[in-house]
Amino acid sequence: MHVPEPLARLIQSFSRLPGIGPKTAMRLAFFVLRMKQEDVHDFAKALVHVKRDVRPCTQCGHVTDKERCIICTDGKRDQSVICVVQEPKDVLAMERTREYNGLYHVLHGVISPIEGIGPDQLHIPQLLRRVAEDTIQEVILATNPNVEGEATASYLARMLHPFSVTVSRIAHGLPVGGDLEYADEATLMRAMEGRRAWGERR
Amino acid sequence: MHVPEPLARLIQSFSRLPGIGPKTAMRLAFFVLRMKQEDVHDFAKALVHVKRDVRPCTQCGHVTDKERCIICTDGKRDQSVICVVQEPKDVLAMERTREYNGLYHVLHGVISPIEGIGPDQLHIPQLLRRVAEDTIQEVILATNPNVEGEATASYLARMLHPFSVTVSRIAHGLPVGGDLEYADEATLMRAMEGRRAWGERR
Repeated sequence: MHVPEPLARLIQSFSRLPGIGPKTAMRLAFFVLRMKQEDVHDFAKALVHVKRDVRPCTQCGHVTDKERCIICTDGKRDQSVICVVQEPKDVLAMERTREYNGLYHVLHGVISPIEGIGPDQLHIPQLLRRVAEDTIQEVILATNPNVEGEATASYLARMLHPFSVTVSRIAHGLPVGGDLEYADEATLMRAMEGRRAWGERR
Repeated sequence: MHVPEPLARLIQSFSRLPGIGPKTAMRLAFFVLRMKQEDVHDFAKALVHVKRDVRPCTQCGHVTDKERCIICTDGKRDQSVICVVQEPKDVLAMERTREYNGLYHVLHGVISPIEGIGPDQLHIPQLLRRVAEDTIQEVILATNPNVEGEATASYLARMLHPFSVTVSRIAHGLPVGGDLEYADEATLMRAMEGRRAWGERR
C-alpha cells in the first residue's frame, strides 16, 4: 500500500486495539492527520501517562493513580461490605447504578481452566486478607453470570466459608425491560428460583 | 465517575475519534492499561510522528513524509494521466484495484456551499497548473458519485475545458455483485445510460 511509513505505523497501532479492523484503523489514522496538533499531543501524552501512572489500588485492585483508590479512601462509604467483581470496568458499571455504597474487590480475571487461569493468578489472597483483618460483614459475589463467573463465585464462596461473613451472589433473572417470551430457559429457571414475596420487593 | 484522572483523559481522547462512543472509548482505554509498555509507547510515538512528518505531496496532494509522494516519484507510472480524487484515502482505494497506473491529484475536499467550501479552498489551482505545464493527456474525474462530488466534477470539467486534455468521469452503474431489484432509480438510470456494446466490455 502506498502509505508513508509514519502513517502505516499509526494504522498498525490502531488496528491492535480490540474491535478495530484495518479499515477503521485507516479511517482513524487519517482523522489524526486532520486533528489539531495540540489534541494529538494530548492523546499521545494520555497514552503514556495512563501506562505510567495508573495502577491497581493496593487495597481493592481497582484502577487508581494514587496508593489507594478514590472508593477505598472515601470515608463515607460503608466499610463493612465488599462487592467482588472481575474487572475495574465492572466497578464503573456498578457505580453507575448509584445504589451501592460499599467497597469493592477487583479479581482482575476469573478462574478459567481453558485459558490456564487458576485462583493463584487472581487477586484472591488479597481478598481473603481483607476479610480476615477488616470489619467486613458481607461479601457480595458479582462476577459475570456465565460459566467462568459462576465457577469463580462458587470457589470464592468455599474459600470465604470459614470466615464469619455473609456471602451473597447477585441475582439472576429477567433483565428489566426484557420479554419473557425471548428469555432463555436457564435465565427463566433462575428467575423462578429467585422469586421473592411481593412484600419483599422494593 | 470513579476513574483516575489519567484514565479519564485517555477516554476523552479516544472518544474524540470518529465512530467511537463513550463506552468504546472506555473499553479501549482499559485495553491500553493491559497493553505492553512498549506497544503503548509505539502508539504514542506514531501519533506524534504522523502529525509531525506526514504532509501533502507538493505535486499531487497525496500523503507523504517526503517532498513528493511515492506515486509521483515512481518513474514507472504513466505520467500522462491524472486521476482527480477528493481525499488521500481515495488514492488508496484506487491503488487497491491494482489497475490504474497513472498519477493522482487530491483535492482535499469537494465544493460544498452548505459547509462553505468553495473552489478556492481546494487544491484546484495546483491541478490546473499541472495540466498546463505537464504532458498530461487525460484527466479522470473520480470524485464521489453524490451531489457535491458531481458538482465538483462538473466545475472541474468546465475549468479544464480550455486545456487540450481529454476529461473523463468514472462510470456510474450497478455495483459488482449488486442486485437489479434493490438498485435505486438514479443508479439504474445511469447504468442504462452508460451501457456499452458487448464487444467493448472486457
